[in-house]
Amino acid sequence: MKSDIQIAQEAKMKNIREIAAGLNLSEDDIDQYGKYKCKISLDVLERSKEEKKGKLVLVTAINPTPAGEGKSTVTIGLGQALNKRNKKAIVALREPSLGPVFGLKGGAAGGGYAQVVPMEDINLHFTGDMHAITTANNLLCAAIDNHIHHGNTLRIDARRIVFKRVMDMNDRALRNIVVGMGGKINGFLREDGFMITVASEIMAILCLATSLQDLKERIGNIMVAYDLDGNPIYAKQLEVQGAMTLLMKEAIKPNLVQTLENTPAIIHGGPFANIAHGCNSIIATKMAMTLGDVVITEAGFGADLGAEKFLDIKCRYGDLKPECVVVVATIRALKHHGGVAKAHLNDENVEALQKGVVNLEKQIENMKKYNVPVVVAINKFVSDSEAEIKFIEEFCNERGVRVALCNVWEKGGEGGLELADIVSDVLENNSADFKVLYDEKDTIKEKIETIAREIYGAKGVNYTTAACKQIEELEKFNLDKLPICMAKTQYSLSDNPSLLGRPEGFEITVKEVRVSNGAGFIVALTGDIMTMPGLPKVPAANKIDILQNGEIIGLF
Amino acid sequence: MKSDIQIAQEAKMKNIREIAAGLNLSEDDIDQYGKYKCKISLDVLERSKEEKKGKLVLVTAINPTPAGEGKSTVTIGLGQALNKRNKKAIVALREPSLGPVFGLKGGAAGGGYAQVVPMEDINLHFTGDMHAITTANNLLCAAIDNHIHHGNTLRIDARRIVFKRVMDMNDRALRNIVVGMGGKINGFLREDGFMITVASEIMAILCLATSLQDLKERIGNIMVAYDLDGNPIYAKQLEVQGAMTLLMKEAIKPNLVQTLENTPAIIHGGPFANIAHGCNSIIATKMAMTLGDVVITEAGFGADLGAEKFLDIKCRYGDLKPECVVVVATIRALKHHGGVAKAHLNDENVEALQKGVVNLEKQIENMKKYNVPVVVAINKFVSDSEAEIKFIEEFCNERGVRVALCNVWEKGGEGGLELADIVSDVLENNSADFKVLYDEKDTIKEKIETIAREIYGAKGVNYTTAACKQIEELEKFNLDKLPICMAKTQYSLSDNPSLLGRPEGFEITVKEVRVSNGAGFIVALTGDIMTMPGLPKVPAANKIDILQNGEIIGLF
Repeated sequence: MKSDIQIAQEAKMKNIREIAAGLNLSEDDIDQYGKYKCKISLDVLERSKEEKKGKLVLVTAINPTPAGEGKSTVTIGLGQALNKRNKKAIVALREPSLGPVFGLKGGAAGGGYAQVVPMEDINLHFTGDMHAITTANNLLCAAIDNHIHHGNTLRIDARRIVFKRVMDMNDRALRNIVVGMGGKINGFLREDGFMITVASEIMAILCLATSLQDLKERIGNIMVAYDLDGNPIYAKQLEVQGAMTLLMKEAIKPNLVQTLENTPAIIHGGPFANIAHGCNSIIATKMAMTLGDVVITEAGFGADLGAEKFLDIKCRYGDLKPECVVVVATIRALKHHGGVAKAHLNDENVEALQKGVVNLEKQIENMKKYNVPVVVAINKFVSDSEAEIKFIEEFCNERGVRVALCNVWEKGGEGGLELADIVSDVLENNSADFKVLYDEKDTIKEKIETIAREIYGAKGVNYTTAACKQIEELEKFNLDKLPICMAKTQYSLSDNPSLLGRPEGFEITVKEVRVSNGAGFIVALTGDIMTMPGLPKVPAANKIDILQNGEIIGLF
Repeated sequence: MKSDIQIAQEAKMKNIREIAAGLNLSEDDIDQYGKYKCKISLDVLERSKEEKKGKLVLVTAINPTPAGEGKSTVTIGLGQALNKRNKKAIVALREPSLGPVFGLKGGAAGGGYAQVVPMEDINLHFTGDMHAITTANNLLCAAIDNHIHHGNTLRIDARRIVFKRVMDMNDRALRNIVVGMGGKINGFLREDGFMITVASEIMAILCLATSLQDLKERIGNIMVAYDLDGNPIYAKQLEVQGAMTLLMKEAIKPNLVQTLENTPAIIHGGPFANIAHGCNSIIATKMAMTLGDVVITEAGFGADLGAEKFLDIKCRYGDLKPECVVVVATIRALKHHGGVAKAHLNDENVEALQKGVVNLEKQIENMKKYNVPVVVAINKFVSDSEAEIKFIEEFCNERGVRVALCNVWEKGGEGGLELADIVSDVLENNSADFKVLYDEKDTIKEKIETIAREIYGAKGVNYTTAACKQIEELEKFNLDKLPICMAKTQYSLSDNPSLLGRPEGFEITVKEVRVSNGAGFIVALTGDIMTMPGLPKVPAANKIDILQNGEIIGLF
């Protein structure tokens, strides 16, 4: 069996100018980065403001399991399949981070015969967006410590600096550090820490900004610290938001690449799906809707986290109205939700499937609350038995939800035609009337409780004393009228990763509440969120290489 | 008077494809990064191996002063002037670092009407080379701490890790840090520190490598730490040199841009000029020599540091034979060497000039030791008086050195025609027979003493006890047969920055000796070298912005 990188390197890519020309983009509209990647000018958005827009399809999933669901692969495969049906489809994805590429998880360019290419470039530096974000983030950090060093006119409380340095790397040694050692010329000693770049608020801002000037304004609004009286200090008070914005003048432009089957793919932005909202950029999605008739995009983790934030944060800010939601599941993963251990997932077990399918059921019910039609995509595995497939199909049919089997990993677009046809049909007979779940003007607790009850199925929400105090503080500073970004385990509908399936009667506990005032959301943390991963004992990096003949190995 | 960024933004740039075509590069030979930057494929070097090569001209300078000498500006202006004379000239420069751009010093794209463009891109992320170096460097660091965390099979002594993390930023708070705080899951506590990216050995390696495989081998040879028995640990023992090399597969390709007058300019690599050798890459210089008839390049700081290392390290490794050295001086700077304070540099003072010209004299003598003809370029200022100019001209004539006045900052290539004609003449009547100053097989002390006596004019070299021990250690590990990279103040021929002009009878003191075994040189430090600058009270970043209409301000 060929590896992802082997398949990718055998792809017959078209010059990106050709892909762009197919979208009616002129040479002036694009900036090439080599022969197979380009950035698209924001002028294209501006001049197409009044034109008819493409239809937006969100691909989401059940709660992820160790069995793997293949959401990105289905997203890419669906795009390829729609193109095979002569639809003008564009895939809109998130950018990979180097941390997982070198760590354990690998890249994020799809898999098998449903990949975006050039896979090695997309998974490595791509067009430099991550590095621009890293640099802008760290310029602000340098400005904070520099301000304190040079007299601290703003009276920044060095014990309460909330904005951290970042690096696009898995590096546990940088999680908790002390900076400013070495005496007077080296600044003031304080505790600090690095996060991985995708956890930066700058990344979330890039993904929610609607123009370069909006980006600058949001950057200026980042709350970076408290002063010695306990009042917030904002980034703009350090006067580097202009330089930070200039650093991102190219990063804000969406990147165009292609799938293995030459379907256009726009890959732009990739914020964390826990302390941030986990979707690609609004600008990229709008650009795709300007250039294509159908836009397929995805959101991080399962539908309870990813889709909820896509719909309640991104669609709210971007004024986007999705017209179809595809929920991806695998029979193996549903059996896992039904209690089957990883070693036995390949054995037929309709009973376990019946037990675990409730996770899918709840995610379907949730998506319907947004008034958007739902389609289920079963990402097929060789081990799926006829009885299991029949069960799933009947389960969906009984609930009036259409379901398609797909096998895009093995067969590319060809393996996604059934799904493509159903999605096309849903879009044509459009019954979507998208609405968000809550009013951002509700109180913080009301908003959190709405999500917890409606989406997670919780019977209530507990708050730690610290969280209550933080909520009061945000109210005091008028920073409370923002949508909520839930940081919760992705493995369960609850905040307990071991509660699989569709848990009931549980309460969730909000341990901490923070504001990402630049990005424009309030983060409610229900557990400890790791913002700087570590490398495993034998990292993927140890197998990655470029050989004498130029062949690249070890990327996946 | 227009600012540099204003002049740059008014430039009539040609599409980089057109510049490339002028060098007989096909579209397959280049990878565009937007419309005005591209990378050149290393295949071009490979296939032109046997062809006639262009002539190499080095631009260097007297010891720098606060008055400014304008070495980059003269380098660029000379390229423009040669092109005006229909010579096929190419400028080969170093890449700027973001630290000085946001700090105090500004960018490094020339000035006035002798600039490389697009200035804002070159000074910001350019084609991402710095970020690739940063990432490769920090992957190795993460691998070191990760190795220790997961059992430390190599028995790395956490107290003796010599390879540091880097960031392309001026950030004093990161100079001395403690990493690994927070208990078991966060690794082992140890002291560490960040350097600015251009100080990374990876940068020096990029600039001395001759192919991607050579790059990988050199990366593997970096000495990163000692084990608990005191033996060196090399990067290859951590098994990430393949991934690091893959991260640099694009960074190793030279970048092509243009000057304000559309002269081709290759900008690639930019290592520190103290703990590293301070020149652009060998690959870029060779590429320029393949594509042009005359290649004008520069080296960091004054000739005693920059040119010495260019000639003894870079030319040695690259088998390069420069055919002319241009020493840049200004009358103001020479008066400063003659003891005039900055406030009075505009006043005519032939006596001070006479006193300070000995610095130029020594640099000329030094360059002649390499058997390469020398030309003096006086970078003109309005304040230069006729008497002062006459003095300099006579001074050079008496020593058989040709001298040209130039004014490329104000007039572009037009202001450098006299210099261009002299340089052309020197190249045509080629009398160069380049040789290096010392044999790298000499002992470390012999090599250091040769440089100190011959180039600095020192009467001897002292070594601290620590330095002697380090030298013995390098000999013991057979790491001593490498050229020397002197780390010394750039302001004086001696190791004391206050000794201007041409000091005599002094001794220098080597305080520390380190090996950069991957890059392939031994660093001899004569003072404390700052490898992570800080930001000033009001950093340049505070003035840098991109306005609503897209105008960029504050870059210089």
